[in-house]
Amino acid sequence: METKLKAHTTQIKVRYAETDSMGIVYYANYLVWFEVGRTEYLLAKGMDYRDVEKEGLFMAVVEAHCVYKAPARYGETVAIATWPSEVKNSSLKFCYRVTRQGEEKTLAEGWTVHVLIDKDLRPKKIPDKIRELLT
Amino acid sequence: METKLKAHTTQIKVRYAETDSMGIVYYANYLVWFEVGRTEYLLAKGMDYRDVEKEGLFMAVVEAHCVYKAPARYGETVAIATWPSEVKNSSLKFCYRVTRQGEEKTLAEGWTVHVLIDKDLRPKKIPDKIRELLT
Amino acid sequence: METKLKAHTTQIKVRYAETDSMGIVYYANYLVWFEVGRTEYLLAKGMDYRDVEKEGLFMAVVEAHCVYKAPARYGETVAIATWPSEVKNSSLKFCYRVTRQGEEKTLAEGWTVHVLIDKDLRPKKIPDKIRELLT
Amino acid sequence: METKLKAHTTQIKVRYAETDSMGIVYYANYLVWFEVGRTEYLLAKGMDYRDVEKEGLFMAVVEAHCVYKAPARYGETVAIATWPSEVKNSSLKFCYRVTRQGEEKTLAEGWTVHVLIDKDLRPKKIPDKIRELLT
Repeated sequence: METKLKAHTTQIKVRYAETDSMGIVYYANYLVWFEVGRTEYLLAKGMDYRDVEKEGLFMAVVEAHCVYKAPARYGETVAIATWPSEVKNSSLKFCYRVTRQGEEKTLAEGWTVHVLIDKDLRPKKIPDKIRELLT
Repeated sequence: METKLKAHTTQIKVRYAETDSMGIVYYANYLVWFEVGRTEYLLAKGMDYRDVEKEGLFMAVVEAHCVYKAPARYGETVAIATWPSEVKNSSLKFCYRVTRQGEEKTLAEGWTVHVLIDKDLRPKKIPDKIRELLT
Repeated sequence: METKLKAHTTQIKVRYAETDSMGIVYYANYLVWFEVGRTEYLLAKGMDYRDVEKEGLFMAVVEAHCVYKAPARYGETVAIATWPSEVKNSSLKFCYRVTRQGEEKTLAEGWTVHVLIDKDLRPKKIPDKIRELLT
Repeated sequence: METKLKAHTTQIKVRYAETDSMGIVYYANYLVWFEVGRTEYLLAKGMDYRDVEKEGLFMAVVEAHCVYKAPARYGETVAIATWPSEVKNSSLKFCYRVTRQGEEKTLAEGWTVHVLIDKDLRPKKIPDKIRELLT
């Protein structure tokens, strides 16, 4: 999985709270970092996800995947490269690559699939103004 | 702080996710355990907190305190003794004592203060049917 | 993905802490539940994962996957069916299916792949006594 | 509690993961933010807490307190003002004040007490080079 040119990269300082008894970041926290990556990707494109929710729409996660290649530890700064792919009628995919800031080696990489839904959990067509930011 | 006779005790198996690099439970997670203690205390008295929220009321936390005396670790079963105190017009206090299951030694103890509010964050008088469960 | 006969099922009461602004369980927390499922699967087979670590071995997660089909909410009791598959020389896979207790409908399902490593992050052959519990 | 001149302020963007069903930040997460505040305070003074641990010392939390005055929500940037107080022989206190970035109103404030311990959980005298950063 190559990081696309259109990726937006967000930096996160690893919190002590995010580590576990093994002395490394607990595996579920990478999905939290992916969420931060998504939020910042959208913001960088000019879209505040809070505005999406204000219109009664939600980007529900329907699938998540992560491959763990090397551990991250407390105090390190990691970079979450984030980019969208496979933007369909009412769903889209985000891809992620986690590295240590300033290093090439991949610590983890993964993707999430989202469906745009309304408050009653019904799928909705992705509005054009959102679609434009993603393609 | 003595555990009162009216306390309800909930058992929790420590999750790996709850530990940190020191090999012990991360300090913020005790507040999560306190929440579990509150939920189970109320249930044991016949009140489902979900029903409180269905009526548009919330027990907002306005203060939390915890003293840490000895660490808990992955795989241990801890017991959260929980009991209410100082039930006032629109606020109440819950007290907690955490031990290892079957042991006397206190691992942590603390308390939380809650105000009953509605959706607009306005304080509301605690309904009699809730008050009865707490006193 | 069918739940195998050899699955062990663990029940978890959803915590308020596990929910998010959408009013449902935050997606990363399913990986925490998977961890609880693994721990309890091993215990049910007679193996305490703490004993594995005492011997200097760790079951590092190298891949995680989750499909989200329906939301779980605060106060619900969910059941995490957990079973191992693909036990290889130094790696193994765990599969999971999350339902509401007493219901058939799948809320989420997923899997994790683990490599047995030592403290220096070197892969180790899975000891026979562990392998027997998994196959 | 006034924010002292010697305070260091860290900014944190609220994550979706940090919110709960009430649509606001879950109360335990303020203790996580306090931890970030401590880490960044020490770094700003020239001390990397990782170096403390490399010397076999840990700043164990023995007490934590938080008063919640107004909620924080997803997407907001909060500022964690952090400053030490009551530096004793082997213990010290950190104080915190949480505001929205650029606003005066206090969202939450609290403090934590720490004891410097070694790997065997024995209290140790705070080394002079650390004490200087705190007083």
